[in-house]
Amino acid sequence: MIKNDFELLVRGTEEIIPIEEFKKKLEKSEKENKPLTIKAGFDPTAPDIHLGHTVLLRKMRHFQQMGHRVIFLIGDFTGMIGDPSGKSETRKRLSREEVLENAETYKKQVFKILDPEKTIVDFNSRWCSPMTFADVLDLTSRYTVARMLERDDFANRYKSGKPISILEFMYPLVQGYDSVALKADVELGGTDQKFNLLVGRDLQKEYGQEPQIIMTLPLLVGLDGVQKMSKSLNNYIGINEHPRDIFGKTMSISDDIMFRYYELVTDVPMDEVKRLEQGMKDGTIHPRDIKVRLAKEICAQFYDQKTADDAEAEFNRIFVQKDIPDEMPEIEISKEELKDGKIWIVKLITLAGFAESNGEARRLVTGGGVYFDSEKIADPDTELQARDGILKVGKRKFAKIVFKVN
Amino acid sequence: MIKNDFELLVRGTEEIIPIEEFKKKLEKSEKENKPLTIKAGFDPTAPDIHLGHTVLLRKMRHFQQMGHRVIFLIGDFTGMIGDPSGKSETRKRLSREEVLENAETYKKQVFKILDPEKTIVDFNSRWCSPMTFADVLDLTSRYTVARMLERDDFANRYKSGKPISILEFMYPLVQGYDSVALKADVELGGTDQKFNLLVGRDLQKEYGQEPQIIMTLPLLVGLDGVQKMSKSLNNYIGINEHPRDIFGKTMSISDDIMFRYYELVTDVPMDEVKRLEQGMKDGTIHPRDIKVRLAKEICAQFYDQKTADDAEAEFNRIFVQKDIPDEMPEIEISKEELKDGKIWIVKLITLAGFAESNGEARRLVTGGGVYFDSEKIADPDTELQARDGILKVGKRKFAKIVFKVN
Repeated sequence: MIKNDFELLVRGTEEIIPIEEFKKKLEKSEKENKPLTIKAGFDPTAPDIHLGHTVLLRKMRHFQQMGHRVIFLIGDFTGMIGDPSGKSETRKRLSREEVLENAETYKKQVFKILDPEKTIVDFNSRWCSPMTFADVLDLTSRYTVARMLERDDFANRYKSGKPISILEFMYPLVQGYDSVALKADVELGGTDQKFNLLVGRDLQKEYGQEPQIIMTLPLLVGLDGVQKMSKSLNNYIGINEHPRDIFGKTMSISDDIMFRYYELVTDVPMDEVKRLEQGMKDGTIHPRDIKVRLAKEICAQFYDQKTADDAEAEFNRIFVQKDIPDEMPEIEISKEELKDGKIWIVKLITLAGFAESNGEARRLVTGGGVYFDSEKIADPDTELQARDGILKVGKRKFAKIVFKVN
Repeated sequence: MIKNDFELLVRGTEEIIPIEEFKKKLEKSEKENKPLTIKAGFDPTAPDIHLGHTVLLRKMRHFQQMGHRVIFLIGDFTGMIGDPSGKSETRKRLSREEVLENAETYKKQVFKILDPEKTIVDFNSRWCSPMTFADVLDLTSRYTVARMLERDDFANRYKSGKPISILEFMYPLVQGYDSVALKADVELGGTDQKFNLLVGRDLQKEYGQEPQIIMTLPLLVGLDGVQKMSKSLNNYIGINEHPRDIFGKTMSISDDIMFRYYELVTDVPMDEVKRLEQGMKDGTIHPRDIKVRLAKEICAQFYDQKTADDAEAEFNRIFVQKDIPDEMPEIEISKEELKDGKIWIVKLITLAGFAESNGEARRLVTGGGVYFDSEKIADPDTELQARDGILKVGKRKFAKIVFKVN
């Protein structure tokens, strides 16, 4: 049963070309109850999915939610070839085994976002490997050199005299031919993919098919608020990261990019997002609260609500104690001080030298100023499990506790 | 047994790149008595070999004469593909049968020049057809877009905004790869092939082979003395033409291009050619005699010396009678005038109305002014076989004789 939500599909997209044809395709699919084929291509190299990738994956999920046929296409054919001249490091040759292994790694990650039941995972080697030289020449006859050189990076390299191997002209043709092979109705990709997506559109026309709609999605800005999110720039949130890290990293972004994250990586209705933005401007909502909600939304997507709540609690504890100094005395506790592997909090405080007597130590605990590893110790009878950690007494006294148990 | 004749190999060539490497290859082949592999590619389209083609074929024969391995390569692979987009008329798709048929037609013609025993006829489909998409991508990785666009016709078309299909970049790669497949030592081609020949040289290096020498041969100027010889311009001498036509057409070329023909399409030693040229300048040799010798040389190549001599004789007869008017009376001779299918020449002259009496007719014959179809009739008792022809009496009297034998 096809039920389109145009507003949701358009949300966060950079370009939809041509938008009118897209509307018609959607209407027709709903009227005839025939799902559209949605294609998105992925590199066959070892994947490490981060929040930036989810902009695209979430768009794929939107289509799935509305009943369309979503194809997660792994470009293994070119991956298994690499760059035979060995000139490109990024085009490392992959074995069949590596490709399949990477595919499994992909699945593990992307099924946190896509519906595993509704996702078709395909490989372009399926139609590329059987192609003959004659088929390839046929393909090359469908596109011109001039149009290929219109692609920005080609144009720049050609103008500046940097070599472009003819192989590089082949990659967009392969990607475009994938759309022909799949009879794609819509192809999704990053803005940097726009040219290649348009090649697919052109080739489909050449092969007598109805051309696909191309939908580009923006690159998500990284935690630094400046460059695109990427692993190599270390400004990313990995979707398999610990909830604490996902939460903490989200809390580290600047207030200006927070609403863009809301738009691109959450389904919080845009009306609500606008209300939050207005609230921050008016001073009626604290930016930190808006960011906490964002962090929980993201966390919940990759785990669940409970985990998101826990992550918030843990973050708050750390946040409270974020005034821990870089340097502090290190106190060694010998085995002899322990009982059943535990140590009495009062004893620990006196051993650390933060109290002259057990009585003073007791009063410090009951006074509410004692923390061990961000955890408040309120009961002076507490027996702590012996583990290395930071003891905080009052506002200024810190000690690194190290148990010498051997 | 290899025995090189450097002077003969260099004769008439436009460029040999690089000439020093060529010398070394020749020396080595002779020293080790190992023949060089000489490659020349031919279109798989229906051939109609003319004198222009023989410039190249003769150079192949020179290599054969010296003991080298000459490959007549038919580019059937691309021919069987044609231009799949149907945009190029010249790249008509050929069937396997057509290719083989054309190959036979080629052989019939080129073996007038090449030694059939020593010529290896090969087809590039032998190595191209089994190539996979992956192999093709490997090939495309060996050459850059910029270098391809250096080819004059590509550069001009690109600059003027005329489309170049990527397929057209593939053809030079295929031709170049042929050299890799054949491990060619030398590739011959017309000057218009220089770029493609150099691609072969580059690709051999890329594939770790010793690069081929390229040898370009000039395009033979046509009978008009201006444009290159080609069938479509109708300024050509076909090698299967009647000896009379080969002779006559050669006699029609201008004096200035005659020595170029000597150089390119005969083996008359260059010293001798220079002597003829000097003789013409000095006025000691009549240009017509030099041209007659050329015409006989060409004729003898495609037939034999006797045929060449006959062609000269026939040409002279026609030349003598070239003052025949376009219009003349037609004289019908009825069956009753014949005896045993023959007619007495004296009777024919009187019937044509060129003499009042048999006596006058006899005197005309003995006077030496009577010709039938360019053949002089000197004996007044001649009985002519009854066949339609032109009767000439004296300098001005012509009649078309038609026998009504039914």
